[in-house]
Amino acid sequence: MAKPSIPKGTRDFSPVEMIRRDYIFDTIRNVFKQYGYAPIETPAMENLSTLLGKYGEEGDRLLFKILNSGDAFAGIQAEQLNNNNALTLQVCEKGLRYDLTVPFARYVVQYQNEITFPFKRYQIQPVWRADRPQKGRYREFYQCDVDVIGSSSLLNEVELLQIIDTVFKKLSIAVTIKINNRKVLCGIAEIMGASDKLTDITIAIDKIDKIGLDAVKKELSEKGITEKAIEHLQPILLLNGTNEEKLLKLQDILQSSATGILGIKELHTLFNYTKAAGITQTIDLDLSLARGLNYYTGAIFEVKANYVAIGSICGGGRYDDLTGIFGLRNVSGVGVSFGADRIYDVLLALNKFPEKTTENTKIIFANLGKKEIITCLQYVQQLREAGIVAELYPDTVKLRKQFEYADKHNISCMAIVGEEEIKQQTISVKNLKSGEQQAYKIEELIELKCLDKLA
Amino acid sequence: MAKPSIPKGTRDFSPVEMIRRDYIFDTIRNVFKQYGYAPIETPAMENLSTLLGKYGEEGDRLLFKILNSGDAFAGIQAEQLNNNNALTLQVCEKGLRYDLTVPFARYVVQYQNEITFPFKRYQIQPVWRADRPQKGRYREFYQCDVDVIGSSSLLNEVELLQIIDTVFKKLSIAVTIKINNRKVLCGIAEIMGASDKLTDITIAIDKIDKIGLDAVKKELSEKGITEKAIEHLQPILLLNGTNEEKLLKLQDILQSSATGILGIKELHTLFNYTKAAGITQTIDLDLSLARGLNYYTGAIFEVKANYVAIGSICGGGRYDDLTGIFGLRNVSGVGVSFGADRIYDVLLALNKFPEKTTENTKIIFANLGKKEIITCLQYVQQLREAGIVAELYPDTVKLRKQFEYADKHNISCMAIVGEEEIKQQTISVKNLKSGEQQAYKIEELIELKCLDKLA
Repeated sequence: MAKPSIPKGTRDFSPVEMIRRDYIFDTIRNVFKQYGYAPIETPAMENLSTLLGKYGEEGDRLLFKILNSGDAFAGIQAEQLNNNNALTLQVCEKGLRYDLTVPFARYVVQYQNEITFPFKRYQIQPVWRADRPQKGRYREFYQCDVDVIGSSSLLNEVELLQIIDTVFKKLSIAVTIKINNRKVLCGIAEIMGASDKLTDITIAIDKIDKIGLDAVKKELSEKGITEKAIEHLQPILLLNGTNEEKLLKLQDILQSSATGILGIKELHTLFNYTKAAGITQTIDLDLSLARGLNYYTGAIFEVKANYVAIGSICGGGRYDDLTGIFGLRNVSGVGVSFGADRIYDVLLALNKFPEKTTENTKIIFANLGKKEIITCLQYVQQLREAGIVAELYPDTVKLRKQFEYADKHNISCMAIVGEEEIKQQTISVKNLKSGEQQAYKIEELIELKCLDKLA
Repeated sequence: MAKPSIPKGTRDFSPVEMIRRDYIFDTIRNVFKQYGYAPIETPAMENLSTLLGKYGEEGDRLLFKILNSGDAFAGIQAEQLNNNNALTLQVCEKGLRYDLTVPFARYVVQYQNEITFPFKRYQIQPVWRADRPQKGRYREFYQCDVDVIGSSSLLNEVELLQIIDTVFKKLSIAVTIKINNRKVLCGIAEIMGASDKLTDITIAIDKIDKIGLDAVKKELSEKGITEKAIEHLQPILLLNGTNEEKLLKLQDILQSSATGILGIKELHTLFNYTKAAGITQTIDLDLSLARGLNYYTGAIFEVKANYVAIGSICGGGRYDDLTGIFGLRNVSGVGVSFGADRIYDVLLALNKFPEKTTENTKIIFANLGKKEIITCLQYVQQLREAGIVAELYPDTVKLRKQFEYADKHNISCMAIVGEEEIKQQTISVKNLKSGEQQAYKIEELIELKCLDKLA
C-alpha cells in the first residue's frame, strides 16, 4: 500500500511548527485585543454568489468550488458539458473563502442592524486559493485581518500603523512600512491625461521594482498611453528624499489635480499623527506602491522585513465602498492583513523564534510495573493540580526505551518510584542533562518548584 | 439587492459568541497541554482516496467534494452523466475532512518515521458534513480531539478520563462519564451465538434509551437474530447496581467467552486506576453504550452533562487498528473528542459562562477635534504600553454619539481632554456607570490602576 499523502499546496503542521505558529497568532491576536478590536469568524464555505466577481476573472478561476450534495448531475444535459463555467455554476453553489475581506463585507451588510459603528473587528482564519503551488505559496493559508468599518477618520489609519508597529516590535522583526495613497495615484493619472487608464498605470507602477523603469515605460506605451503622458510620470517615479520632501515636490507636480492634492493632504496628516502615536519603525512614502486590488480608495500600506529578501508580510488600505458590492453604500473602512506564513519564514530566516522547547512536560514518571503505578498515578496528579506538566509513561517496558522517549521530547527530569521509594515515601528524580539523581518528597517537588531549577 | 446570506447549516460567530467559544477552546487546550499532549493541524482538504470508505456508505455521501480546478469537465462523455458517483470521482479529487480521526491516522502513517511513539497529540479544527441541518447539528463544526497512539496500556484510558474529568470541572459542568468495552459487547454477541451480527447488535443496543426494550427486541428479530439469542441478551440489558456489582454479574454471564472476560478484566483495571487518579465525576458502566463507529476495539466512552437534556458532549474509545486502513498494522490507539458546540449549548443552558464583558476596553478617549487629538494619541499609547486596553474615538462627532458607542461596547470610562485639561495636563475621567467625573494625571491612571477601580 502506498503511503497516504495530502493534496498539493496543502500542509500538515507538526507539534514544533504548531508551537511556532501559535506564537505568531497569539502575538498578533493580543495586539489586536490591546487596541480594542473584537473577534469574529465566518464559515469556510460561502455561497458562490457572494464570492464570484469580487476578485477579478483570475480570482473567479482560483476559487475552490464545492460540488452540490446529493445527485449533483441530475438533469444535466450532454450539451452542457461543453460550457465548463456555466456547468460549474449548475453543479456548485458553494465555494471556499478566498480571503477574509469579502466575507467581512458580507457580514457587515448582513448584520448591519446589530452592529454599532465604527465596527472594529479582527479575524484569524485560513483561506483557500487554487493557485499553482510553489515555494512560499500555498493553497491553504492563514490570514490575520484587522479592520475598522464605518469611520472615515484618518485616526483609524494611524491606529492600524500602531498595530503594525507593535506586532513587529513584539516579534522582534525590524520592518519598513511603505505607505501610499490611491488618491495621489489618481492625481498622477489625471495630470497624465490618462484617468481612464488608472488600473494599467498602477499595475505598471507596481512592477517598477521588479522590471525597472524602461520596461514599465514600454508596458505603459503598449497599453496605449502617450509618450507625453509617460514623460509626465517619470519625475514621479524617480522622486527621492525624506517623506516630507517627497510630499512637497508632489504638491508642486499635482497642483492641477484636486484629487491628488487631497491625497497629499491625507498623507501629510497621517505622517503628523504617526509621530504623536509613538510609531518608531521606518515609514516610507513609496509611490511605486499600488497593490493589485481595485477597491482601495485612500491610504495603502505594505510592510517588508528589513535584512531578509521575503515579500510583503502585511498589507492593506482604505476602501470607501467595499460593502457597496452587497448593496450597503457609503460605509468607509480601512484594514490590514498579516501574512502568518511569510512572518514564519522571516522569523526562521532571522532566527528570531523564542527559545521554547517543543514540549512543556517538566517531569515524566518511569513505569516500573503494576505495583508502583497506583503511587505514580497519585503523584502525577498532585503535580498537575499544582500546575506542573507531568506525565506517567504508559507502558511497562525497558527503562532504556522510557529514557529515549524523555530525550526525544526534551523532558529534562525522569522520576523513579520503586519499592524502596514507596517505602521511604520519596521520589528519585534524575536530571537527564546532568545525570544527577536526588530523592525528594512530593511536597518538595511541588512547593520548592525544584523542577524549574532542575530543568 | 437582497441581503447576502451564508450556506444553510453554517454560521457566523459574533464577538460575543467568539469570546464564549474561545473560553471553551482555551480551557480544553490548556488541559490537553497540562497532560503533555502536543498540537498538530492537518489541511481542510484531503484527497478523496483518504476519506472515502472510512465512514460507511452514509459517510461517503455526506463528504463535501471539491471540484477539480481548471476545466473539470474536459473529456467527460454524455453517458457518464448517468452515473453520479463515478462522475463525481472523475471531477473531484479532494474533499473536506469529515472528522479529525482519519486525518490523524493518515498523519501517523505518513510521518511514522519521524514520530516517537507513544504519540500524544491534540487537534482542534473544524470539520464538515453535508448532514441535513437542524437544531444543534451544523454542516461546519469544531472537534477537539485528543489521542495517544502506539501504546496499548490502559493507563492511556485513565489519562483520557482524567482529562475529561478536569475539562468539565474547569468548565463547572457536572457530568456522567459512561464507559463500556467493545470486548464485552463481543462477548455478549458470542454467548448469544450471533458473533457475525455484532454490528446489528451494537446498533440495536445503542438505541435502547431511545426506542425501549420491545422495539430493540423487534429490531434484533428483524435482523435475523433468534428468539433464544435475544433471551440471552435480556438480563444484560436490564443489569443494574454499582459498577462493581454489574461487573460481577457480567463475569458470570460471560464466563464462556474469553473475549468477554478480557473486556471485564480491562474494565476492572480501569475502575481501579480511576480512583488513584483522583477522578471525582460520576463514572457509570453502561452496557447500552455502543457508539456507532466500528473501529473501536476496547474501551468506549461517552459523556453527558447532568441536569440538562443535551446529547453527548464528549466521546471516544480504544481502536487497535485505525492506521491499518493506511497500511500500518498493529498500532493501537485511544482517543476522545470534545464537541465544542454542544458544550456551548450546555454552558448556556446552565448559565455557566463566566461573567466576562464582551469587550475588554477599559477607557475610551472622546474625540473633541484636531487640536486635542495629538495629546489624546499620546495618552492612549501610554496606557496601552502599560497594558491597559484603551481606545480613541476616531471621528469628531457629537459627544452623545461617542457616549452611545462606549455604552454599546460596555466601556465603563470616558476620558475627556479639552483645552482646559491640556493646560492643566490632566484627564477628566467620567465613570459611565455612576456618572461621577474626576481629573487624573496620566501617571495616576497608569500607576494607581484607577481604571480597575473605576470599572
